[in-house]
Amino acid sequence: MEKAFAKNLINIEPYVAGEQPKSDSIIKLNANENPYPPSPAVYAAISSFDAEDLKKYPPMDAAPLRKAVAEFYGLDRSCVFAGNGSDDVLATAFRAFFNSDKPILYPDITYSFYPVWCELLKIPYKVIPVDEGFNVHIEDYFIENGGVVLPNPNAPTTIGLGLEAIEELIRHNRESVVIIDEAYADFNDVNCVPLIKKYDNLVITQTFSKSRSLAGMRVAAAIADPYLISYLDAVKDSYNSYPMDAVAISAGVAAIGDRDYFQETRAKIIATRDRVTAQLRELGFILPDSSANFLFATHPDHTAEEIFLFLREKGIFVRYFKKPRIDNYLRITVGTDEQMDRLIEALKELIG
Amino acid sequence: MEKAFAKNLINIEPYVAGEQPKSDSIIKLNANENPYPPSPAVYAAISSFDAEDLKKYPPMDAAPLRKAVAEFYGLDRSCVFAGNGSDDVLATAFRAFFNSDKPILYPDITYSFYPVWCELLKIPYKVIPVDEGFNVHIEDYFIENGGVVLPNPNAPTTIGLGLEAIEELIRHNRESVVIIDEAYADFNDVNCVPLIKKYDNLVITQTFSKSRSLAGMRVAAAIADPYLISYLDAVKDSYNSYPMDAVAISAGVAAIGDRDYFQETRAKIIATRDRVTAQLRELGFILPDSSANFLFATHPDHTAEEIFLFLREKGIFVRYFKKPRIDNYLRITVGTDEQMDRLIEALKELIG
Repeated sequence: MEKAFAKNLINIEPYVAGEQPKSDSIIKLNANENPYPPSPAVYAAISSFDAEDLKKYPPMDAAPLRKAVAEFYGLDRSCVFAGNGSDDVLATAFRAFFNSDKPILYPDITYSFYPVWCELLKIPYKVIPVDEGFNVHIEDYFIENGGVVLPNPNAPTTIGLGLEAIEELIRHNRESVVIIDEAYADFNDVNCVPLIKKYDNLVITQTFSKSRSLAGMRVAAAIADPYLISYLDAVKDSYNSYPMDAVAISAGVAAIGDRDYFQETRAKIIATRDRVTAQLRELGFILPDSSANFLFATHPDHTAEEIFLFLREKGIFVRYFKKPRIDNYLRITVGTDEQMDRLIEALKELIG
Repeated sequence: MEKAFAKNLINIEPYVAGEQPKSDSIIKLNANENPYPPSPAVYAAISSFDAEDLKKYPPMDAAPLRKAVAEFYGLDRSCVFAGNGSDDVLATAFRAFFNSDKPILYPDITYSFYPVWCELLKIPYKVIPVDEGFNVHIEDYFIENGGVVLPNPNAPTTIGLGLEAIEELIRHNRESVVIIDEAYADFNDVNCVPLIKKYDNLVITQTFSKSRSLAGMRVAAAIADPYLISYLDAVKDSYNSYPMDAVAISAGVAAIGDRDYFQETRAKIIATRDRVTAQLRELGFILPDSSANFLFATHPDHTAEEIFLFLREKGIFVRYFKKPRIDNYLRITVGTDEQMDRLIEALKELIG
């Protein structure tokens, strides 16, 4: 029997959560998490955090974190916004910058969050197909639009664009705001931060979840001309519901302050990635050179689903998408060398 | 000169933040924060938190916190939802439950968040005036509606309704979802938790920011029939952008686990509140009996603005609203006994 109030409930299916593997012996390469722990400075910041401070509301603007990010990049702090993970920052940016009747543009193969927020915020959008090799062609974005959002490198394809291509994209879209989602840019050789001084329609989003090992803490930033940052603040303050918590601010400040640790873990992941790319190719896999902390691979003789299930049996979890165009690809997070050796061993057993 | 992309920006004024008093000598009675620190169990949970866990995403459903809240109230954990402060929980609830063409109802004098989210989510609403003494009359809510949201006790009026009145409200609104916002209910003698077994259209929201001294940590819960909780999960998971961070979950579990500390600080605040209520009345203030951790007071011989400015000069910050009907009232958070003594002394100087 239907409940009397059911007519007022949102029209979406109640969600049934998937089982998360709990065993310590499994190898989790399915969420693009960093295999290395956060900087020792983060441990220190948390263990020495004065819990008495928690009785008060946190600083609504997360000022200490904005300052730390600005210092890292040598910017004025008015160029930085902070939020609870890059989904929070992206949602705020979509609200602030995508208010046109014209569609916003993004690739057909990309981060699954963009269509969700377009639907939620009723933002019109047009997806631009990537080519057969999953490459983004910048000139496809030289059409009338209400905004552009592009991850660089793109996910899950792992393909990064150079700074010149990004600059060309921005230069051809001076009547829109262009968001470059740099969730994985720290594993690439380029980021767009130098461009914000030149282009006041550019917004860069970055997360601490990947390259700074803080997925569990929800820390992210946006970098842009102060004019656009003021709009992010205006949206955030108009409802002001999701200030960053005080411990997250401290952890973020500590993480970005430890440059050496950041460079060291980043370099380790990049080295492992490039080694494993070669090993996978030796096994017959086809995959683009990755600019991220994960690989996007297909095999001519085994379906992605078959490989996914085989690996799962072995306690190795990778990501398999049942989606058009990419349903024969696997997204494999770059773990430690030891974890990746076990992956390669397992694949040799199947394919070898 | 207007920027070419300005037409796509959201139409709200960029926000200019007010100055926050920084000095340690000031007495901050303007944000309804708890004057006592969190439970020692929270200190222990944070200082012993293993930062290595932060490299992984937090449990998306904050399961350990749901379990702890359910245990506290003797409920099944399927009756509990958790979020980043009660604004997060309320926003999720508004999305999930207020999808009618009929207006939702709430008092004209109440938490300022409700109209903000109605505007943002395009939910029609009708405000129901409280009477001259700021009392909510339940029978005013026995009209056709798309939902009801009512804080109990109400803010900033401090007036609480008994369980019978709330039950009558729910019984007369079985075709809508009724949200009872219990942000301050721990300072009252009643909460509605016993009613959720009886009424499947009731949703209770609670926060850890006030009675559990975790304003800086962003922790809150909703309690309802599992059917409604499944809709909160569905909304949350449909965008899944704001999972609680792993440290916040641990802090919340620790806070709700320490019943003795909770009862002790709660009792101290209630005792201080009732003593200060009497003292203010002796000074000529008119104020309702408070069921919250703050007071709502007016004085026949001095305007609220005058008192507000006088106290600010003395380093005592209370809340003054320049809003219709309440612009001659002050909202005064109940601090420690020592802080409240200083408040009374200062007021004697002005009024004496």
